[in-house]
Formats: sequence, structure tokens, C-alpha cells
Amino acid sequence: MNRFLQNAIQLAKMAEGQTGVNPAVGSVVVKDGWIVGLGAHLKQGERHAEVQALDMAGDQAQGATIYVSLEPCTHFGSTPPCVNKIIEAGIKKVVYAMKDISLDSPGDDILQSAGIEVEYQHQAQAELMYKDFFKAKSENIPEVTLKVSVSLDGKQATDTGQSQWITNPGVKQDVFKHRARHDALLTGAGTVQADNPSLTVRLEGERQPVRVILDRSGRLNLQQQIFHDQQTPVWLYTENKEMLNKEHSNQVKIILLEDCSIKNILQDLYHNGIGSLYVEAGPNVSSQFLQSECVQTLIIYYAPKVIGGSGKYQFYQTDNVLSLDKIPQFEIANSEIIDQNIKVSLRKK
Amino acid sequence: MNRFLQNAIQLAKMAEGQTGVNPAVGSVVVKDGWIVGLGAHLKQGERHAEVQALDMAGDQAQGATIYVSLEPCTHFGSTPPCVNKIIEAGIKKVVYAMKDISLDSPGDDILQSAGIEVEYQHQAQAELMYKDFFKAKSENIPEVTLKVSVSLDGKQATDTGQSQWITNPGVKQDVFKHRARHDALLTGAGTVQADNPSLTVRLEGERQPVRVILDRSGRLNLQQQIFHDQQTPVWLYTENKEMLNKEHSNQVKIILLEDCSIKNILQDLYHNGIGSLYVEAGPNVSSQFLQSECVQTLIIYYAPKVIGGSGKYQFYQTDNVLSLDKIPQFEIANSEIIDQNIKVSLRKK
Repeated sequence: MNRFLQNAIQLAKMAEGQTGVNPAVGSVVVKDGWIVGLGAHLKQGERHAEVQALDMAGDQAQGATIYVSLEPCTHFGSTPPCVNKIIEAGIKKVVYAMKDISLDSPGDDILQSAGIEVEYQHQAQAELMYKDFFKAKSENIPEVTLKVSVSLDGKQATDTGQSQWITNPGVKQDVFKHRARHDALLTGAGTVQADNPSLTVRLEGERQPVRVILDRSGRLNLQQQIFHDQQTPVWLYTENKEMLNKEHSNQVKIILLEDCSIKNILQDLYHNGIGSLYVEAGPNVSSQFLQSECVQTLIIYYAPKVIGGSGKYQFYQTDNVLSLDKIPQFEIANSEIIDQNIKVSLRKK
Repeated sequence: MNRFLQNAIQLAKMAEGQTGVNPAVGSVVVKDGWIVGLGAHLKQGERHAEVQALDMAGDQAQGATIYVSLEPCTHFGSTPPCVNKIIEAGIKKVVYAMKDISLDSPGDDILQSAGIEVEYQHQAQAELMYKDFFKAKSENIPEVTLKVSVSLDGKQATDTGQSQWITNPGVKQDVFKHRARHDALLTGAGTVQADNPSLTVRLEGERQPVRVILDRSGRLNLQQQIFHDQQTPVWLYTENKEMLNKEHSNQVKIILLEDCSIKNILQDLYHNGIGSLYVEAGPNVSSQFLQSECVQTLIIYYAPKVIGGSGKYQFYQTDNVLSLDKIPQFEIANSEIIDQNIKVSLRKK
């Protein structure tokens, strides 16, 4: 791959997880083989990658080539279209790694009409990065990653509810890294009640995602530490009107939905700027997410144990039995050993 | 490693080979876990990495943490010291990956005196990147990489001078990539005479380094294509005064040195802004470079052939015989197979 296009993709990856419902994009401006500007889209509503890189390049953008991880945008959102800025800057050539299939009018065409040479160098790496984004955007829901920590026999706890074995330090660090790359985390009321978790990122300098709790029936009393630790907002979804009357600190927002289906919650989250969601929950909520077919990435940490019992806390349980051709299908993207746990990352097929 | 510090090192790597006698440096500004600015030092005399990143961050730099691949500078060069800019921007904390041992007054101390929290998170990866730079800087010579393409028995050609087997396409592409990451290439008069090489980078969008030719005796007639192809400057080093009178195009600069020793040439190159040099030459010049002890990186491409003969063109030949404890010592940094050639990258011990 062209190394400048590779650089643009690297820059996009740096900003992954902090661009809300916008895609993470990176860009490099090259003049006579010299990098003269580089940038990334850093936050929803702020300057796009191309604009950052062109601003850094200044006058040197005249006659230069711009490399972008994603086809330049053509719409007036919170910022003007990037194609305009590229044309105004006097760019001679645009190279991009992935088509923006969500654009009404393709940036490629507009740039070419303006006499700019445009090259679409399709990159598998960029496609992988944007595939989930486009799918989520077309459905107005966040990109969803479901994480489960289980025994080798697929259980999150023993039949009596013991699950302390999940606190493996290496896995914890890895989970913190994942949390920090998402706009929000979600868990169920059961986990809040049982574990009293803080759901924060304990890594220096890292960002704290919004914490989302699904409490359909409204069983929580809002006394747990998560509701008054002053760390980062907590959004609680419920179908129980009475929750609105419960006293709570101002870090908590109670959101009443008539039907707290996974799909409805996801759509509401998306409309509130959540572009990526990391789900860490018990078997009940995990199973609901898997059944919703909205999980694009599934991460399983297998601890080297077999728990047995009746399997009360298997991570995937359903009332109805689907035939083998109807069950959720995944493909393995990666597998590694972390601190004596096997981490398997899977992507929805 | 902290991922923001990793990002800063990645940014430095993007600019490697285009910063002349300055180090390649990358920087990321992080506020509450969000990347709010990123930058790299892109060219000697232009804005430093910290300044680029702080400019991108704007007001958001107030109270933020800045991650830098190298300790921030304290001297007035072509730009004011970065420590001043960091202090003025209201940065709360500085994290850097490698100490700048060439600074008269350490940036770390100045920043701490200004009440900024400073953390030196030493990174092996950054040390590897800057070690050669500091060594070269302390000696006022460029970082030198010597590349040879040889048979398994260490010969660049048969005794009769046949060497066409070197034109392996995969190796060629790899060589182009290396060329583009250096300020200048160097070869000997013999190679120019025998091969009529262009010594350019045939990769789209890449930069053309300066071409340096060592012609001590002044045997070249300056008619070869390299002297009038209008591609990129040619600097010819010679001890022969008469070369100054030879007609040549304006892309050629004749540099007369009383003593064209490798050390003298390297110092002159450094004073002309060449911070990194890639040497591709015949056995004569290659051997001189190896004997000079100025080669920090040695890259050997072994073709799967044995040439035999008397070894007239072995890549390393010396008049005097050194004992085994005095010969140049290297350590293997990497080894890979490229298009049926074995590429071995070595670093001076």
C-alpha cells in the first residue's frame, strides 16, 4: 500500500472511538513527496481530517496530493463540505481508501468535475474500519461490541452466582482499553445490583465513556456508587414511570421509553450522539443483544476453567430454539492469549 | 505502552527521512482523554511537532497533557523553544518517550520549574529511533545506511563484472522505499560508469533524495543520464580541481575537497543539511564505508545464487587484515524473505 494512504488510515485509527456518530477519518497532504500536513477528525462537530491537514499545510497545499482514509464529504453538516475546501486549497490529486456509501452526491465525482485527479485505492484495512460504521449509520444505531468473560463451558458464573474468577488483571486492562475507545458502555440492572461496578476506565489519561444502564422494570434504588461517584454521566433506560420521581444526583439521566427493546434503546442512544457502544452485562442482557442481531463485534474472554452445574448463567440463552441455519453467525477476526485467558474477537457475518 | 505516547511515536515515524539534520518528532495533545491536537515536525526550519499539535488544539490545550516522542527542545533555532510554547499554552502535564541527550539545558527541568508535571516514560521503540540520530549529531555526520545486493557467497558480481541478477523486482521496490526515506543517496563513480543508473525513486508520489557521487580522481565526463535528467540535484565530490571546469547542467554541483575521505564527505553533507544517507555502491566504496565505521545500518539482500570465481567483487575487501576482535561488529535487527531474496537488516554494535 502507498505509505501516505497507510498514514491516513493510522491517523484515523488514533481518533477511533472519539468521533461519536461521525466516522474516524485521517488525512495527509503530500507535496513533491514531502508530508506537508496531517490531520484527523477529532470530534463530532469539529474540523474534518482534510481541513486539519490542509490548514497545517497552508500555502503548500497548492498543487499537492491529499490522501484520505475515506472519500471526502460533500454535505453541509456542522462544518462545510470537505470537497469545497480541497478545491479551494488548489489540491491537484485526491487519493482515498474507502468509498463513502452514505453520501448522496459522491465526493469523487464533484472533485473530478472540478478538474482534480481522483484515485480510489480500495484498502481492505479501511473497509474493515468503516463497514460497521456504514451499517450502523444506515440503521441509525451505534456500532455495538458485546464483551463476555466466560468459563470454557460458556458460563459467566456458577449456578449459585459466584463469578469472582472474572477479575483477571490482564483481561481487566484489556477491557479498560476497549471501554476507552467507545462513546458509551452498557450494562443491566442485575449487574449493577450484584457487582456494584464503577464501569470506568482505570487507565491514566484516558477518556470516560457515558455509562448506560438498562433497568426495564425500575428495580434499582439509585443508591449504588455508580449513581453518585461524579465520574461520568449515567443514563438509565426504563419502562417504569416511577423511576422519574426517584431522587438522584445530577450525573444521572432517567430515560423513559414505552418499549425498552434493544433496538429502541440503540436508536435513542444514536440520536443522543453515541456512535459506538460497548456492552458488558450478565447473561440476560447479553442474550438480548445477541438475539437483536445488532452486535457487530463479539469479544469473548475464556478463562481456563470449566464450571459445570445446570448452566443457569450461560452467556447465551434463549426461550425459543432456532434451527442451525438461523442462529447468529460470526467469523473469527482474531484470537490471542492474555494472562492465561483466551481472547477471541469475532465479527458478525 | 500508553496509547497516546504510541501515537506520538507513530507520528514521528511518518516524518522520518524528511527532517534533514533535525530529529523526526511526533506529538499528541490530550484533554480529558480526548485527542484534541496532533502533529509532527515535517521539515527542518519549520514548526516543531509540539507546536503543530498545540496549534491544532487551540484553546483546548489549556490544562491538557501533551505526549511527545522526544523531550521538548529548549533552544532558539529556526523556531523558538518548544518548552516556551508548552508553558504559554497552559499545558498541565508533559509525557515524553526519549531523553534529548543533545540539549544543553534539559527541557524536562525547565518545564518542571514552570510548575508543569513531567513524566519520562522511556520507550525502547523511541530509543531505537533516536539512538543513531544522537550519535550522528554528536559527530556532525548523517545517519548512514549501507545497502548491498550480493550472492550467497558475498559477491556483487562475477569476476568479469556481470551483475544483472541484482534486478529482482521485489528487491527493487524495497530499495525504492528505503531511498525515499533518506535525504540523500550515495554511489561511486565506478557504478555510474558501469551501470548508468538514475538513482531515483520510482514510486508514485514519493520524494526524490539528493544524489551524491564520489569521484575522487575525477574520471567521469558528466555525460551520463544522471547528470542531465532534471530529476533531483546531483552533488559530485572530487579531489580533482579540473572537474570544476567541466561543463554540466545546473542540477549538478561539483564539490572539491582536498581529502575525500568518507568522514570528510559525511561532515560536508551534514553541513549541507543531509541528516540521513543511503549508500548503494560497488565493492570499493562499500568497503570504504564499512572501514570508516560510520555505517550504523547495514542492509544485505542475498540472492539465492553462489557466484564463485576469485571474488574480485566481494562486497567487503580491505588491504590490511584486522584481527577478529577488531573487525566491524553488527547485530541482526531483522531478517525477511523478499521475492526469493533474503533481506538482513543489521545495526552497528
